[in-house]
Amino acid sequence: MGVYEKLKEKGIILPKVGKPVAAFVPWVKAGNLIFVSGNIAKRDGRPWAGKLGKEISLEDGKEAARGIAIDLMSVLHSAIGDLEKVRRIVKLLVLVNSDPGFTEQHLVANGASELLVEVFGERGAHARSAFGVAQIPLGACVEIELVAETA
Amino acid sequence: MGVYEKLKEKGIILPKVGKPVAAFVPWVKAGNLIFVSGNIAKRDGRPWAGKLGKEISLEDGKEAARGIAIDLMSVLHSAIGDLEKVRRIVKLLVLVNSDPGFTEQHLVANGASELLVEVFGERGAHARSAFGVAQIPLGACVEIELVAETA
Amino acid sequence: MGVYEKLKEKGIILPKVGKPVAAFVPWVKAGNLIFVSGNIAKRDGRPWAGKLGKEISLEDGKEAARGIAIDLMSVLHSAIGDLEKVRRIVKLLVLVNSDPGFTEQHLVANGASELLVEVFGERGAHARSAFGVAQIPLGACVEIELVAETA
Repeated sequence: MGVYEKLKEKGIILPKVGKPVAAFVPWVKAGNLIFVSGNIAKRDGRPWAGKLGKEISLEDGKEAARGIAIDLMSVLHSAIGDLEKVRRIVKLLVLVNSDPGFTEQHLVANGASELLVEVFGERGAHARSAFGVAQIPLGACVEIELVAETA
Repeated sequence: MGVYEKLKEKGIILPKVGKPVAAFVPWVKAGNLIFVSGNIAKRDGRPWAGKLGKEISLEDGKEAARGIAIDLMSVLHSAIGDLEKVRRIVKLLVLVNSDPGFTEQHLVANGASELLVEVFGERGAHARSAFGVAQIPLGACVEIELVAETA
Repeated sequence: MGVYEKLKEKGIILPKVGKPVAAFVPWVKAGNLIFVSGNIAKRDGRPWAGKLGKEISLEDGKEAARGIAIDLMSVLHSAIGDLEKVRRIVKLLVLVNSDPGFTEQHLVANGASELLVEVFGERGAHARSAFGVAQIPLGACVEIELVAETA
């Protein structure tokens, strides 16, 4: 099954790529690598603010990460024009807005990682670092940046 | 207008590249990509210490980020020999030493991003992630790492 | 002296690569670059938990970083099959689980950087960013991700 069929099957509609809130661009291509800017968690189109281990539950953090993965796929689609041309999701950097006592950043990050593997199959299996940060722009609970390889 | 003319017009003199404070090198080239080590904010040649949302104002944080962008250009110049050979500023990772309540890391980061676009034009438009960290070596208020592509 | 002789001389035995604790893979190769996932500090096979500037001393933090470098070399060995084919250690991202007052992340990171230079010689000299984070999965005191270039 193709990538777009997978997305359809899951009821996922890729949103229009938002304009960055600051002086940078959503993605840059260098050789076969596409570097996608850090995307922050959103709910109803607005930053989804709060800290894991405080206002945000693990379940909500995972959902936020999954939502970012959808936004990242939108950026990839707009960058490449065709998600079938993604040869590999190479790497995620997953930043979790964390109370100093929260230690399950890897489970939050799974919300994004699992969706990418479901949609892209083997090509979606990626390297990853996840950790807890002191804050994220606009107070968002999660931020994820991505590197992908194109054919 | 060329990159060096732009710098001159702005009154920017690229400093000599400092020796890293620890066991690493200022940059590594792999294929057409140049990976530049994280540079910390400095004032009068010394680490510019403090946290955003505490001792450091947004305006000073932006200024600190701008100063790092100048240092990063110095490293690129020493790595490549000619900044005109920069094909693209690919990506910045902007770490802001943040009080847990400070949420404007993206505005701090603009201090670096805007200067790079002013100096390099379209080639300076980059992908970026910015977030708040618990600390930075020597207490510096901002740290930035950069990836660039050469011709 | 070759890489494996260097490791032997130092009494370092590369461990079996552990299974990631979450939905990602230990490494991805894209072109000549190998992206290795963030590895967390371990002691006696279990996460080495604690914060620098609190429960973990600088000396222990350095030791933890050195241990991660060994794990990262294991991953590279399993990815490439022969560490002699590493053309360059390109970049480390060193995350130090830090109390907000701890400012010696660069010294902690040296525990990894120095070992890589000792083992790989000039090919081991890498770019690097080190900073303090609010937390790390499973409470680990240090996490390091690595990019290497193969022949």
